[in-house]
Amino acid sequence: MKKTILLTALVLNGLTASFAQSNDEKNIKLFYKKALTEAKCYSWLEYLSNDIGSRLSGSKGAAEAVEYTKRQLEGLGLDKVYLQEVMVPHWVRGEKETAFILDGKVKTAVPICALGGSVATPKTGITAEVIEVQSIDELKGLGDKVKGKIVFFNRPMNPENIAAFESYSGAGDQRRSGAKEAAKLGAVGAIVRSLNFRLDDFPHTGAQSYDDLPKNQYIPAAAISTNGAELLSKLLKANPALKFYFKQSCETLPDALSYNVIGELTGTVTPENIIVVGGHLDSWDLADGSHDDGAGVVQSMEVVRILKNLNYKPKNTIRVVLFMNEENGGKGGAKYEEVSKQKNENHIFALESDSGGFTPRGFSIEADDANFKKIQGFKDFFEPYFINSFIKGHAGSDIEHLTSKTIVKAGLMPDSQRYFDYHHAANDKFDAINKRELELGAATMTSLIYLIDQTGIVLPSAN
Amino acid sequence: MKKTILLTALVLNGLTASFAQSNDEKNIKLFYKKALTEAKCYSWLEYLSNDIGSRLSGSKGAAEAVEYTKRQLEGLGLDKVYLQEVMVPHWVRGEKETAFILDGKVKTAVPICALGGSVATPKTGITAEVIEVQSIDELKGLGDKVKGKIVFFNRPMNPENIAAFESYSGAGDQRRSGAKEAAKLGAVGAIVRSLNFRLDDFPHTGAQSYDDLPKNQYIPAAAISTNGAELLSKLLKANPALKFYFKQSCETLPDALSYNVIGELTGTVTPENIIVVGGHLDSWDLADGSHDDGAGVVQSMEVVRILKNLNYKPKNTIRVVLFMNEENGGKGGAKYEEVSKQKNENHIFALESDSGGFTPRGFSIEADDANFKKIQGFKDFFEPYFINSFIKGHAGSDIEHLTSKTIVKAGLMPDSQRYFDYHHAANDKFDAINKRELELGAATMTSLIYLIDQTGIVLPSAN
Repeated sequence: MKKTILLTALVLNGLTASFAQSNDEKNIKLFYKKALTEAKCYSWLEYLSNDIGSRLSGSKGAAEAVEYTKRQLEGLGLDKVYLQEVMVPHWVRGEKETAFILDGKVKTAVPICALGGSVATPKTGITAEVIEVQSIDELKGLGDKVKGKIVFFNRPMNPENIAAFESYSGAGDQRRSGAKEAAKLGAVGAIVRSLNFRLDDFPHTGAQSYDDLPKNQYIPAAAISTNGAELLSKLLKANPALKFYFKQSCETLPDALSYNVIGELTGTVTPENIIVVGGHLDSWDLADGSHDDGAGVVQSMEVVRILKNLNYKPKNTIRVVLFMNEENGGKGGAKYEEVSKQKNENHIFALESDSGGFTPRGFSIEADDANFKKIQGFKDFFEPYFINSFIKGHAGSDIEHLTSKTIVKAGLMPDSQRYFDYHHAANDKFDAINKRELELGAATMTSLIYLIDQTGIVLPSAN
Repeated sequence: MKKTILLTALVLNGLTASFAQSNDEKNIKLFYKKALTEAKCYSWLEYLSNDIGSRLSGSKGAAEAVEYTKRQLEGLGLDKVYLQEVMVPHWVRGEKETAFILDGKVKTAVPICALGGSVATPKTGITAEVIEVQSIDELKGLGDKVKGKIVFFNRPMNPENIAAFESYSGAGDQRRSGAKEAAKLGAVGAIVRSLNFRLDDFPHTGAQSYDDLPKNQYIPAAAISTNGAELLSKLLKANPALKFYFKQSCETLPDALSYNVIGELTGTVTPENIIVVGGHLDSWDLADGSHDDGAGVVQSMEVVRILKNLNYKPKNTIRVVLFMNEENGGKGGAKYEEVSKQKNENHIFALESDSGGFTPRGFSIEADDANFKKIQGFKDFFEPYFINSFIKGHAGSDIEHLTSKTIVKAGLMPDSQRYFDYHHAANDKFDAINKRELELGAATMTSLIYLIDQTGIVLPSAN
């Protein structure tokens, strides 16, 4: 214990160091104060969102975001800042999509957007009858009836769940695999209800995959706004023979060269043990992705800014990683893991922020029981900041495949209620961000990174 | 114990009744489910906000809101619905205010709004030099220098607090008493920085009072937007002799007749014990007051709708009270207490929702230690709904003066970070409300009302 205290006293400058426990409390208080009074995350995000804009992998925005964040990290005086090459899918939307419900003589425009990875329709669009289903299982039961039709997946996100992400998971298969399954049965197109609780006019894009389907069987897939879905379903009940028209010109170009952006505060005691904090630089193309995941990017940068600004000398190496291509391929996360394995690196902890920039509520933790209990033991530190939820759950897509002998992962868990109002849609813009909520998230992340750095993780006993 | 269970089984219809503990868990689950799938609060609020609009005491909107909410409560089939007469202040804003910074030859318009209760400027407005202060104490130290000047109160809300309401309390004296104190020193006007963390262009109104100042010493008081305040402060540093012009035509009319709206589910065991749940019907006049306090009104109505819909027969009388005139007088709360005393009524519990319609986080509780501990003991029931904060604090303005032999009070505590972006400003509108957040608040309130009704409060031992 004495050794720890002494070490703390030596390595902290501007941070309080007297008794370990109250010391940690005071340092965490300082992190929150700095985040709420002098953070750069909000102005960084303003630039990413308003000056650079959308950042889909392979786009000009993605390339600019790489340059911009690298430059900003360099300005912080970290021990290392570098780019990590990664080849990424390059899908482009093309012209704005159009869609109509054709009900007898009445033609009603509805808002749609192509799903990421989808093929285009023929140039003149597709017109076909519509068959509505609530699930892929229901679709499979329809057999031949699907042939020549547009399949309309219309299962809403379940409003009964308290955590919005549960409802997202529960409805997401329609978007990810709906087109593929419909194609297998001879459908000519797939229209998927947007993954959004709210009834509004925004279509929400997102990744879909044809998996191992032969290319000549690919059919175009699009999301329809929730209001559009409600209307289509209502009109179908009255006239099952109505038709749907849609046109989209998206395409997949050859893979493009891009980068993960990495910065590092090198450890002063066990530099070989690495702690990662990150988010993903790429966004969908319909807006500037301020919540998904501009917020996570700038919060991760803020963590190292605060620590560096306090002249904190971490025991372990703290690495901020801004991953490329989370949205449609996960190539950045995979590349980071590949290089890490080649270098035989040892990661002890990884924290991702990729659930929006809303008020932080806690952490979603992937850990064995001993480490889960350890992190739960930090609860008292977080109580003054209304950070109360320490639950087992998915930590983050970019760090999902990251392995090491013993690794603990966590995801920042912001309030989830509004997230899907914006997720992958044209309104995920800077004005949907609240400065204080963003900053509180950054302070919460800094505090957990600090506590893990100070106390380490629990290694398997005696092995 | 057996008796309780039997009673529960008798009085609940549609609610689960087997073992008390798991029974409560299941019933609370049902409240959340009903709130998230069939609540009326969101559509009620849509009507209040979009069809009726602003509801300042004495206004047409306030009168319409009384009629509308009474009619809606009548439609729920409660045991009683009635109006309670109350005379309220009737202040009107008049024409839209104008203000300019006059810096040499440069004239810059800045957004202001008269503070509630303020007098008008002369018809041609007021032009005077400006003296900036950070506090009333600083003002008092200036003595004669204030004479003939406009006092500019510019202390921002402290960003370091985690709970936004703490920062509101910390800066609020400038708005409430700034003009009065400035008038005492011979100032000709008071301009107060809006109580808002965010830098934006919305001036935020709110009550101010001249207290016992003689009427001929009243000076006009207005709020300036935070951006306006920053600009004025900056220009003043460069040119302390610059002048400020403002013009407002507000006035206080004779008191008006208005009403509290009251509905009741009469108790089936101890009807003489009353549980109140409420919010306030009036709002400021700049917008429709969707957060302040349309949300609290419709959430309180939802509590009794859910309970009535489940055919719940409360042990105690559950009374929904929609108070008039919280914003500029508190006459509704005072009248309710006055009548309650006349009738020798016994209130055991009062719950107010008047902190916005955001995601609920917990309760702010006014109780003796025994009852505070009792409510904290409900924590486990609320854990699945991410309701984690049970803290001692102010419960609500409308129930502040409510007395009884033993009474416990609580305020719903929603997430506070965004509240002051909207509070008393022109953007406190329906589109700032998230349906699920509003509904979760209603379910949280229903659950606490239910638990208190089931288990009572702790009475002083043996007295």
